[in-house]
Amino acid sequence: MSMSSILNALEKDSDRHLDDLVQWLRIASVSSDSSRKSDVARAADWLMDKFRGAGLAVELVPTQGHPMVIAETAPVPGAPVVVVYGHYDVQPVEPLDQWISDPFDPTVRNGNLYARGATDDKGQVLTHVQSVCDWIANGEPLPIQVKFLIEGEEEVGSENLERMLPDLADRMACDCVVISDSGQYSDGQPAITYGLRGIATYELRIDGPSQDLHSGSFGGAVMNPAIAICHVLSSMVDKTGRIQIPGYYDDVVDLVASEREAWQNLPQDEAAFADSIGVKELFGETGYTADERRWARPTFDVNGITAGHQGEGVKTIIPATASAKFSFRLVPNQDPTKITAALEKHLADHMPPGVRYQLSPDHGAPGMLADTNSRYMAAANTAIEMAFGKKPVLIREGGSIPIVTRFQEVLGCDCLLLGWGLSDDNAHSPNEKFRIADYHRGIRASALLWDQLGKLQPSESK
Amino acid sequence: MSMSSILNALEKDSDRHLDDLVQWLRIASVSSDSSRKSDVARAADWLMDKFRGAGLAVELVPTQGHPMVIAETAPVPGAPVVVVYGHYDVQPVEPLDQWISDPFDPTVRNGNLYARGATDDKGQVLTHVQSVCDWIANGEPLPIQVKFLIEGEEEVGSENLERMLPDLADRMACDCVVISDSGQYSDGQPAITYGLRGIATYELRIDGPSQDLHSGSFGGAVMNPAIAICHVLSSMVDKTGRIQIPGYYDDVVDLVASEREAWQNLPQDEAAFADSIGVKELFGETGYTADERRWARPTFDVNGITAGHQGEGVKTIIPATASAKFSFRLVPNQDPTKITAALEKHLADHMPPGVRYQLSPDHGAPGMLADTNSRYMAAANTAIEMAFGKKPVLIREGGSIPIVTRFQEVLGCDCLLLGWGLSDDNAHSPNEKFRIADYHRGIRASALLWDQLGKLQPSESK
Repeated sequence: MSMSSILNALEKDSDRHLDDLVQWLRIASVSSDSSRKSDVARAADWLMDKFRGAGLAVELVPTQGHPMVIAETAPVPGAPVVVVYGHYDVQPVEPLDQWISDPFDPTVRNGNLYARGATDDKGQVLTHVQSVCDWIANGEPLPIQVKFLIEGEEEVGSENLERMLPDLADRMACDCVVISDSGQYSDGQPAITYGLRGIATYELRIDGPSQDLHSGSFGGAVMNPAIAICHVLSSMVDKTGRIQIPGYYDDVVDLVASEREAWQNLPQDEAAFADSIGVKELFGETGYTADERRWARPTFDVNGITAGHQGEGVKTIIPATASAKFSFRLVPNQDPTKITAALEKHLADHMPPGVRYQLSPDHGAPGMLADTNSRYMAAANTAIEMAFGKKPVLIREGGSIPIVTRFQEVLGCDCLLLGWGLSDDNAHSPNEKFRIADYHRGIRASALLWDQLGKLQPSESK
Repeated sequence: MSMSSILNALEKDSDRHLDDLVQWLRIASVSSDSSRKSDVARAADWLMDKFRGAGLAVELVPTQGHPMVIAETAPVPGAPVVVVYGHYDVQPVEPLDQWISDPFDPTVRNGNLYARGATDDKGQVLTHVQSVCDWIANGEPLPIQVKFLIEGEEEVGSENLERMLPDLADRMACDCVVISDSGQYSDGQPAITYGLRGIATYELRIDGPSQDLHSGSFGGAVMNPAIAICHVLSSMVDKTGRIQIPGYYDDVVDLVASEREAWQNLPQDEAAFADSIGVKELFGETGYTADERRWARPTFDVNGITAGHQGEGVKTIIPATASAKFSFRLVPNQDPTKITAALEKHLADHMPPGVRYQLSPDHGAPGMLADTNSRYMAAANTAIEMAFGKKPVLIREGGSIPIVTRFQEVLGCDCLLLGWGLSDDNAHSPNEKFRIADYHRGIRASALLWDQLGKLQPSESK
């Protein structure tokens, strides 16, 4: 069977592909909402049925939380083994009143399918499910073995998968993990993401007096925890965005010239980018473009602060307590543990007198860099170019997908981050969508990827 | 009739005095709670009845909010005229679950009467009401004229009284305003307060991107409003508590040597003070004692900050907005209007790029200094020494009572701030109380004050 007959079959089935996605999106699998537990289970069941219908070996793997779905095609001796990782759980939908249509009643508008999970990640996961199931339904074996590992807890931190991964290592042994949970570079410009930033998140709580004090009777006599937190947070970063914690940049591997050159050729429009997010000017470390700063430079962001009176009107108090949540995005080679140690020392050195404080690290994960010269990358490049009609660009992504680093560590495999979404798909926001044409292109690119990987010489596959 | 017979009469009536206060405190006159409007009116009526019963000329003066009660004793030609100012409204009671007994079911424990309004200000107002009413009931005219101006909106800012005061100026013409809405210096050490700090309050809102952004995808490209507010707030004050706004100290009149000497002799125990408010060490401008800093040095306090994610768990965003409420306590001679202008310039000079901001001044009032050498002060000194058995100390208070400055401006009179409360009376907090013995001492001191003022030579009374 030729690849073109597969592609024709996919084309012929496109209405059913969309109908499948609509069905899956109707299931409100919000993993963080305990009242949705049965919906999360139904979403896993739906996927199990889909795999079973295509004849894959399938198993529902229980966890302490929501289960994982594992499905496998037949082994192909000598050919590469690919794990497709994704998730069937979705983000909460609040604020519900900002949705134009019901988040769980998938609706087509202007060539987009609107629903919670459309792009993140049911729609993107399903591109690989469809390509595999259709291939097999066409009566031919896949040229490679594909193992699916689709979890139900990505939106709540993947903790169970991270912990269970070593036990699953033999079963998930592979040459390459394929993940479609990201985006194209821009509308019409597909991309392969070869780098991710790491992350380290913290909560800092500063305590002063045992209760809120009257700022008239006590102002001038005690350190104000809200001022203390401003001092100490502002000591961590200067006004150009350069982090001031000693040692913070020690392990940073700077961008290489070839990367910077390649990114210079991307269709960047910083003014349009600023406009799209509602700011008059971009901001950040001098000497780097916005893409360089977002993708490959470490950053510090305060995610939230709370202290004292926040309601209407005036309440002239010295708050008893102030607290802040903040995060660093790390670049590959920075170690979250070392960052925490440097931060602890910085806080001890810079905390104003008269207050007590507690730093609570939440989670940390290193960044990731994939080998852009691997044969898997080359195969993905060809597949995407054929499916999207345009050569993909190689980019990094500023976000963090901690499980990717775990896959590299535990499975010792390559990673291919192949995103079919767009930056305005509103993942995690109201009116999430997935462009229907990108869904179909993703299915084609997926099938073409299996074909390309199947052409690798056996001796080269490991 | 001798003063000792008046004091005997007061002693004989002490049970009724307490009973009166209990009755008044049962009325939940929370001025900020619109559902309590009829209770606020009942509290005014209760006071009207009390005055009427003693034969005073009395009037309920309506305002756009809650009414004022004005009552007058007969004029005494050639003798001083005193206005007693106070308020019959009370603070809200929340958090209710922290009250040991119902805030509106006055309860005696360990010699204290617990109820909302016990010390602030019904209990303290009633000391003057009782002394005047009992004096008259004893069959003798007061040696001076006393005019009561008791409002129902002190806890919501006294805006109506401030606006109406010029129209009331003729009626309230007096030599001296007496206010008992503060405290003794410490347990067993009565005080006369001769200075108050002024105040200037603001809200600063900083806007960045049009919505919260993912700190992975966007971190490094935009100014984070929560970081911007930390930078700009920390630029306003250094780590010693010294305010960094150019011009801020220009009009500050420093403490005079005699004041500093007098305060050095107060029974100050900074370690015990720190302990009482739950901090290990006090903090503030170098070169000043804690009392000097609290009473007579200008300060900056952040009253509240809000930005981004404040709930449980991690949400790695760049918040769209951050805002803070903050206040300055000013010393006499500092002008809130000039402070606002200096602040505006400072913000313009120090605001990080990439954000928009809005400064909203709320209210401002200058500080107050009374003449410590006045004959009214001397009369109060004698009266308090006789009633409390100890000479009062002369102190300032760090809080602000804007209406006091208005009285000085509009009525051109002296002010006597005679507080009978204690610092642990929990005004504005759960379990507000008033020591019953201090209530009775306050009544005696009030009667003795009328006596002392009546002894002033007619020619000297203005």
